[in-house]
Amino acid sequence: MLSSKEFNRKVYLQDKPRIQAKEELLEKLKLIPEIESIPTRTALGRVTALPIFANLSMPHYHAAAMDGIAVRAEDTYEAHEQRPLHLEKNQDFVYVDTGNPIPNEYNAVIMIEDIQEVDARTIEIIAPATPWQHIRPVGEDVVCGEMILPQGHSLRSVDLGALLAGGVLELPVIKRPKVAILPTGNELIEPGSPMKPGDIIEFNGTVFASFVHEWGGEPLLSNIIVDNPEQIRQAIEKAAAEADMIIINAGSSAGSKDYTYHVISELGEVYTHGIATRPGKPVILGEVKGKPIIGVPGYPVSAYLALEWFLRPLVYHYQGIQEPKRETLTVRLGRRIVSNMGAEDFVRMNIGYVNGEYIANPLTRAAGVTMSMVRADGILIVPPESQGLEQGEEVEIELYKPIEAIEKGILFTGSHDLSIDIVSTLIKKKDVNRQIISSHVGSLAGIMAIRKGEAHVTGIHLLDPELETYNLPYVEKYLAGEDVVMLPFLKREQGWIVPKGNPLNIKTLEDIVEKRAAYVNRQRGAGTRILFDSLLKKHNLSFEHIQGYEREMYSHLSVAAEIKEKENSVGLGVYSAANTMGLDFVPVADESYDLVMTRAFYESEGAQLFLEIIKSEEFVKAVEQLGGYKVVSDCVPNFF
Amino acid sequence: MLSSKEFNRKVYLQDKPRIQAKEELLEKLKLIPEIESIPTRTALGRVTALPIFANLSMPHYHAAAMDGIAVRAEDTYEAHEQRPLHLEKNQDFVYVDTGNPIPNEYNAVIMIEDIQEVDARTIEIIAPATPWQHIRPVGEDVVCGEMILPQGHSLRSVDLGALLAGGVLELPVIKRPKVAILPTGNELIEPGSPMKPGDIIEFNGTVFASFVHEWGGEPLLSNIIVDNPEQIRQAIEKAAAEADMIIINAGSSAGSKDYTYHVISELGEVYTHGIATRPGKPVILGEVKGKPIIGVPGYPVSAYLALEWFLRPLVYHYQGIQEPKRETLTVRLGRRIVSNMGAEDFVRMNIGYVNGEYIANPLTRAAGVTMSMVRADGILIVPPESQGLEQGEEVEIELYKPIEAIEKGILFTGSHDLSIDIVSTLIKKKDVNRQIISSHVGSLAGIMAIRKGEAHVTGIHLLDPELETYNLPYVEKYLAGEDVVMLPFLKREQGWIVPKGNPLNIKTLEDIVEKRAAYVNRQRGAGTRILFDSLLKKHNLSFEHIQGYEREMYSHLSVAAEIKEKENSVGLGVYSAANTMGLDFVPVADESYDLVMTRAFYESEGAQLFLEIIKSEEFVKAVEQLGGYKVVSDCVPNFF
Repeated sequence: MLSSKEFNRKVYLQDKPRIQAKEELLEKLKLIPEIESIPTRTALGRVTALPIFANLSMPHYHAAAMDGIAVRAEDTYEAHEQRPLHLEKNQDFVYVDTGNPIPNEYNAVIMIEDIQEVDARTIEIIAPATPWQHIRPVGEDVVCGEMILPQGHSLRSVDLGALLAGGVLELPVIKRPKVAILPTGNELIEPGSPMKPGDIIEFNGTVFASFVHEWGGEPLLSNIIVDNPEQIRQAIEKAAAEADMIIINAGSSAGSKDYTYHVISELGEVYTHGIATRPGKPVILGEVKGKPIIGVPGYPVSAYLALEWFLRPLVYHYQGIQEPKRETLTVRLGRRIVSNMGAEDFVRMNIGYVNGEYIANPLTRAAGVTMSMVRADGILIVPPESQGLEQGEEVEIELYKPIEAIEKGILFTGSHDLSIDIVSTLIKKKDVNRQIISSHVGSLAGIMAIRKGEAHVTGIHLLDPELETYNLPYVEKYLAGEDVVMLPFLKREQGWIVPKGNPLNIKTLEDIVEKRAAYVNRQRGAGTRILFDSLLKKHNLSFEHIQGYEREMYSHLSVAAEIKEKENSVGLGVYSAANTMGLDFVPVADESYDLVMTRAFYESEGAQLFLEIIKSEEFVKAVEQLGGYKVVSDCVPNFF
Repeated sequence: MLSSKEFNRKVYLQDKPRIQAKEELLEKLKLIPEIESIPTRTALGRVTALPIFANLSMPHYHAAAMDGIAVRAEDTYEAHEQRPLHLEKNQDFVYVDTGNPIPNEYNAVIMIEDIQEVDARTIEIIAPATPWQHIRPVGEDVVCGEMILPQGHSLRSVDLGALLAGGVLELPVIKRPKVAILPTGNELIEPGSPMKPGDIIEFNGTVFASFVHEWGGEPLLSNIIVDNPEQIRQAIEKAAAEADMIIINAGSSAGSKDYTYHVISELGEVYTHGIATRPGKPVILGEVKGKPIIGVPGYPVSAYLALEWFLRPLVYHYQGIQEPKRETLTVRLGRRIVSNMGAEDFVRMNIGYVNGEYIANPLTRAAGVTMSMVRADGILIVPPESQGLEQGEEVEIELYKPIEAIEKGILFTGSHDLSIDIVSTLIKKKDVNRQIISSHVGSLAGIMAIRKGEAHVTGIHLLDPELETYNLPYVEKYLAGEDVVMLPFLKREQGWIVPKGNPLNIKTLEDIVEKRAAYVNRQRGAGTRILFDSLLKKHNLSFEHIQGYEREMYSHLSVAAEIKEKENSVGLGVYSAANTMGLDFVPVADESYDLVMTRAFYESEGAQLFLEIIKSEEFVKAVEQLGGYKVVSDCVPNFF
């Protein structure tokens, strides 16, 4: 933690348009690629440094193109159906197979189907041969001296064959550009190190190194560098000596960002400090000892985007090949998107194939930073001049996943349960193309997603406290007029999740109030919260009696994770979540966790597979093993 | 060469539809993938063998989301603009930076912008804080126990970051399937070995190994196996013991195909022998000791296609992920395509972006087998029931190159000259996206390609013998009414290409006749052939006087390659071709090699670049260094 002097934050100097910043970087720095000679066999994916010419011809001899006999064409001109001609072996012909060399004295091949054996030494033909018929001449495929591949060609598997055929056993390719990756930050620790509060695992470096590898470069991932100007300077100088390009990943504290800027200015030149994008603004572009250097923020999403905007072009440019473009998909927006005027917005999106069209929505806030990069199906770029995009508008999304995965994805949006992960695993085993794409937003939001056509299926456990009935009342209320199907799915035990040993000896709601336990609540609209509220009402209590009522988490697991941290805490949740975290559990109520699907989805192949799975023995066994469950999927579904 | 007993060829038993053959293979053989545990850092591109759950939460502590101070929210409720509140350091608050842990006694963060320093120990606030504001709770990003990635997920760079963040340092992935590759054939030799006529370089094995590598498998490329049933049997048995799948690549002689079939039948079972595709028919699919085995023909195109049809699905299926699809492009056919009824035709195509649309044509016959795989832009599949496709018809092509390369390709179709390769190299240096796509079909065919809209630019050297003028008369005749531009380009020396030392002492056309030299001609429509014919006429000779007049080659280089083989041969060609082959040269005539472009192309960016290059000093120097050239590109173009 830094001193209190940090009142005056460094103001970012610029808001430079991203493309302009990139073009400046490419223009100011002349990249001089190095060349190396490598064996052809290992050259897949490498880029030719020079045009490659064949060293020999293929075939390198006149070859028979068919099985048959080699003859002198002139000897055969008399042959005619009415006047068959006899030829003598080793005098007028020899036998050849496809690919055999044609002896010098012969200049045509007659196919085996066109000759008749008279005896062991004689054959008969009834038609003449023309000179050079059925002969593959020298160089018919590749001619010595012919250009096999141009310079700047990214080698594919078939190219390796042509090179070897042309006698090229090794060839000059562009060396992989070396990219130094410098993680900086006092709070960073190597993955696998013992952790204390405040420590953050350094994983950006691994992701960067992996990107560099993907793009054809050679990553040089350094050890973590502390937030010290002298150390940072030394690291950058060393990187400039050893590598072709440098990435320096700022720690997340304000101080390190400043050091990086100052050190680069000292050692070289800063071209850009701050670009007009959200996220991703605090990027530094510059040069040290003639090598390009890019300073990226610690926030993973910003860092990954910055690498793609500025490092990727450099790596491809070094190799002299074009940056591959991502596949895009035209989709309709499921809800409106707010935008920042004056900056490009990069919005991570989920895409689903619902009711015959592709609908895209920004990732729900249920996804934290790192997982959002894993979950995003693609990214939407909103231009600087845009004031926002409307629901229903058609937009183009750059895909992060293959379109087949999106097309067949089963969108599950609602209250998360560990059993859904099991369904996903079993579905994928049956069909590699199918996957459940889960959004953990809670039961009520799940119902709304079904209504808005943003999901295929939701899992809900919503208690109507008056009717003391689960789910049905909510479906009738919120999905009136919609074509949906509700399927009974699970009975789950809800109860008090408490630290191991139940130190406060919580048994009832009154215990929670009396012992001033720190309650960990769920978000509004979550079935568990609705259950808790109904319990409060039943016991004539109000939320004011509950310390921590305003403390909201988004899933059973995160409630359990919270409780694991604090000895005096308690929450309401499912047994499997307590069990997973090694916490104790006091049963409170059984609830119904049911599925609601659109009728359209219910009738689709994906749903048929889903239903098959949840009725299967394998599934029932796996779920009941988690504890606190009873599977009721064989009950009759309700159609609306 | 085999004995003469091979009159009765083995008849292929089947003509099984390709998809049916593939589905049978996948159904009959249950692939049992093995699992291995690898470090997360090295896992890019691997496939998860099980669902992966987080081992720890991220953050794993309550973290400040902003720079500021940590407080007890309850302490701040009285703060108001009219009633500022003072807080004392280390009693009521501590300073925190973004990412710092919140000490246990505090439960909210106030941003630094919202506080005023009174003195070193005291600060002032004028608004209350709500509990948990600006705090990232434990597990906000990744929760311990949460499923980070499902089973059967192909790991991307961003996934590695999420795994490390969740404390997953190593994970179970599907082992790469081992694919044994067995090249067989008596005529095969390893690349780099000394070569005698009849030897064929074994390069298919390297291409197969490269494909396997691309698809995620581990290739085991064996040494060459001779065409001997016992050796083949041993090799297959060994492969079945060591590998998960087997590819056996038949030699090109008929005999080896039979051995493979018999050996597989002996050791296991043949499911399919012969599929309904052209090319690619003689494929064997079967099983040996429970491992799938695929026998592919020696003909490279057929072999590469067979691997894609049958091995690729197996390798992806083993890993439990979907086969990626190739990008496709809708194009218009430049000429009609003949098709085989009853079989799928796989036609290699070139695609050009001409006059605002994509036009595709089968590769010209000027491309031999191996180079055709390098040159093909894509492949067109003609269904079995089709009787052929008409010129102008819209079809879908599976691309072998990225669409950007095709879009910017400059289609050069005509008489090849080494200078065009130099232009291509220099153009690519200036713009990595630009490339010249050459088709060597000769001058007249080049003019026709311009007329038919199949090319952007052609190079021609056509002599009108009556007018004794080059090129212009042909353009006026064949391109009347077309919007074209003719640019003077080169003066080239044509002459007799003879073996080193000029053994027959050829000086004149009469020498060729008298000494009965073996002439190597060019194809009809080639400028060089037209020149030769005009020389014959001038000297009152006819083609009947010329031995080998019917011997036709498609380029200067292939004429030279031919001459290199035979001591008594001679051909007409350019100096640079003779020089490249180390042959001697007797000058005969200077000719004009000029360029003709469509007007549309002339006005495009690609052409501007082309013209810039051919007028550049670098180009002129490089070409004149080849010998026998004079660059005249600075002369004025002719517009038609």
